[in-house]
Amino acid sequence: MFKLVHKDKSTKARLGKLTTAHGEINTPVFMPVGTQGTIKALSNEEVKVCGAEIILGNAYHLYLRPGLDIIRKAGGLHKFMGWDRPILTDSGGYQVFSLAKLRKLSEEGAEFSSHIDGSKHFLSPEGAIGIQMTLGSDIMMTLDECVHYPAAKDYVGQSLALTTRWARRSKDHFLLATNDQRPTTKGQLLFGIVQGGAYLDLRKKSAEELIAIGFDGYAIGGVSVGEPEELIHEISSYAASLLPDDKPKYLMGLGTPPDILEAISNGIDMFDCVVPTRNGRNGQAFTWNGELQLRNASYKEDFRPIDETCSCYACKNHTRAYIRHLFNTEEILGLRLVSLHNVHFYVKLIELSRESITSGRFAEFRENFNNSYKKQKELQ
Amino acid sequence: MFKLVHKDKSTKARLGKLTTAHGEINTPVFMPVGTQGTIKALSNEEVKVCGAEIILGNAYHLYLRPGLDIIRKAGGLHKFMGWDRPILTDSGGYQVFSLAKLRKLSEEGAEFSSHIDGSKHFLSPEGAIGIQMTLGSDIMMTLDECVHYPAAKDYVGQSLALTTRWARRSKDHFLLATNDQRPTTKGQLLFGIVQGGAYLDLRKKSAEELIAIGFDGYAIGGVSVGEPEELIHEISSYAASLLPDDKPKYLMGLGTPPDILEAISNGIDMFDCVVPTRNGRNGQAFTWNGELQLRNASYKEDFRPIDETCSCYACKNHTRAYIRHLFNTEEILGLRLVSLHNVHFYVKLIELSRESITSGRFAEFRENFNNSYKKQKELQ
Repeated sequence: MFKLVHKDKSTKARLGKLTTAHGEINTPVFMPVGTQGTIKALSNEEVKVCGAEIILGNAYHLYLRPGLDIIRKAGGLHKFMGWDRPILTDSGGYQVFSLAKLRKLSEEGAEFSSHIDGSKHFLSPEGAIGIQMTLGSDIMMTLDECVHYPAAKDYVGQSLALTTRWARRSKDHFLLATNDQRPTTKGQLLFGIVQGGAYLDLRKKSAEELIAIGFDGYAIGGVSVGEPEELIHEISSYAASLLPDDKPKYLMGLGTPPDILEAISNGIDMFDCVVPTRNGRNGQAFTWNGELQLRNASYKEDFRPIDETCSCYACKNHTRAYIRHLFNTEEILGLRLVSLHNVHFYVKLIELSRESITSGRFAEFRENFNNSYKKQKELQ
Repeated sequence: MFKLVHKDKSTKARLGKLTTAHGEINTPVFMPVGTQGTIKALSNEEVKVCGAEIILGNAYHLYLRPGLDIIRKAGGLHKFMGWDRPILTDSGGYQVFSLAKLRKLSEEGAEFSSHIDGSKHFLSPEGAIGIQMTLGSDIMMTLDECVHYPAAKDYVGQSLALTTRWARRSKDHFLLATNDQRPTTKGQLLFGIVQGGAYLDLRKKSAEELIAIGFDGYAIGGVSVGEPEELIHEISSYAASLLPDDKPKYLMGLGTPPDILEAISNGIDMFDCVVPTRNGRNGQAFTWNGELQLRNASYKEDFRPIDETCSCYACKNHTRAYIRHLFNTEEILGLRLVSLHNVHFYVKLIELSRESITSGRFAEFRENFNNSYKKQKELQ
């Protein structure tokens, strides 16, 4: 299912191909986030034109709305939302512990109240797999407990032990499930999630135990949950080094463009992040020369595109001055254009990273990018 | 500039071609409304794919934001917003009398306070032409006073007299203006606006006086300002009958799909209306079988497209159930899809009207449409 194609010489960057039920993905890959069955503000067509090979959906949100019954009747999430390329779904673990009101955590699972209407629900590891089977995602994630930083080692250790037991139950449930329980997508993949907070020995323990259970890929979770930036990369780099080279390595929820390049250099293959769309809706654009806040009055008469080197619809057709006007007058097209540009930028950044790994120039590519990206203040 | 191509035998419907500085328009025509330099929630590309031949901009809004200085520097409204087909701009009269706080109306013009920041401005007939020259719109409208229904005849008569004097001043200013004052669009057209409220004799007086001044086209204004629906069509039909056949006739701000077909049968050539986009943002879709409110729970499991006969992106790719989910979760794509569908529907409705006029079956087309449209309650 995963084929390691090439390893960089001067860094740990790698090229791979991951085969899923809805097609092949080239790694490293960026997955735009479609929490509720839509990449916010964008159409599927736009996301495809950006070059996205896979998107992310969220089991917690889709379970609550529209609910599994409707998605089952639609024939799975792909058909419901009209997206025919691969989808990875998050298990809902992160949302239960961050968004919903957690009522009771037990060996069995998590009882929580919906953040929408307060209704009570229970999510077990088996339930999370069941939900994702109904969604028909190509890549399912195990249910985990996500601990925020900082946390005492005792607590993180106990939490990790529970997460590992849940991972084993998830795998067991996955193996027992018949194809009848996977109505829309045969050949779903299951990824485990390495936890352990900022404690490297616990990360090691987590990785080893998950590898012993055996998954189609491994995610590094519980990063960017409040810890200092250096620590994010120390943890994720270390965790990545423990994971088998013949499986995809997915760093959950990160990050800024320089973050992503650093993680690629540490051997990470897969990324998802809300930053391009969330920040896009607020007028923040990512460019090869750094970040622009397009709401700023300084762009009132700036008739250049967001990024002169960019080939996205926004840059080919519109100016900073126009987009600034759209934000200033609260017109929806403004946040559409910047979201589109940002998703295009993130996908392109990783596409060019792949090219530079192929040609053995990734370290140079990354250095040039970082120099240019950080020079923004002087240039704008 | 306007060529009457064909007249229907059984109704007053007509086919025409209006030549503007940015190309030819086939009439009858529907103009999507781009108040602030964008058709709300849609991209230019989407509006073009819908088949829109011309859009509407609003001098009042664009004068306030982004302001004329920025649009002048951008090279006119077309370049500022990246739209290369014709644009008609409203003079701002309607907005000054309905949206802004009117401070003082005099022979000279209207003093008003901005609805955005309360700042004071003065708009004269010459000023309104000057603004529209800077915008570089293909079709400019004269400044008029728009009286709401009901209003006493004395008041409407006095208002009309002022509007007519303003129309004369607008024409004079237009004739005197050099090409230097029309920096971006040579060969702009100027339309007069027939007023007179619900008093047919005043409408007649208005039409005759405007014809004596002479304009490139004539609009019927001050309809759908509170009067009963029958009266709208009585007034506009009567006014249209007074206007010369060799000039385009534009009914401002109307209306529902049956309204538009009735107006076409009364000889109207041009329409603009916020209904397809405004109602679209609220989940109301127009179809050949009537109107749907897609927020309704009844569409939760309705996996049909909005309209099975429609070829727009929303109908080709998405279901009512998915769009209902998008509205339910406040996702921007929902209002995008319904706005897109509605603009496509309006443009298509008039396109098919044109075809039926060509083939001499307009009365039949309209009857069939109305029957099918009004049957909605039984079908949905």
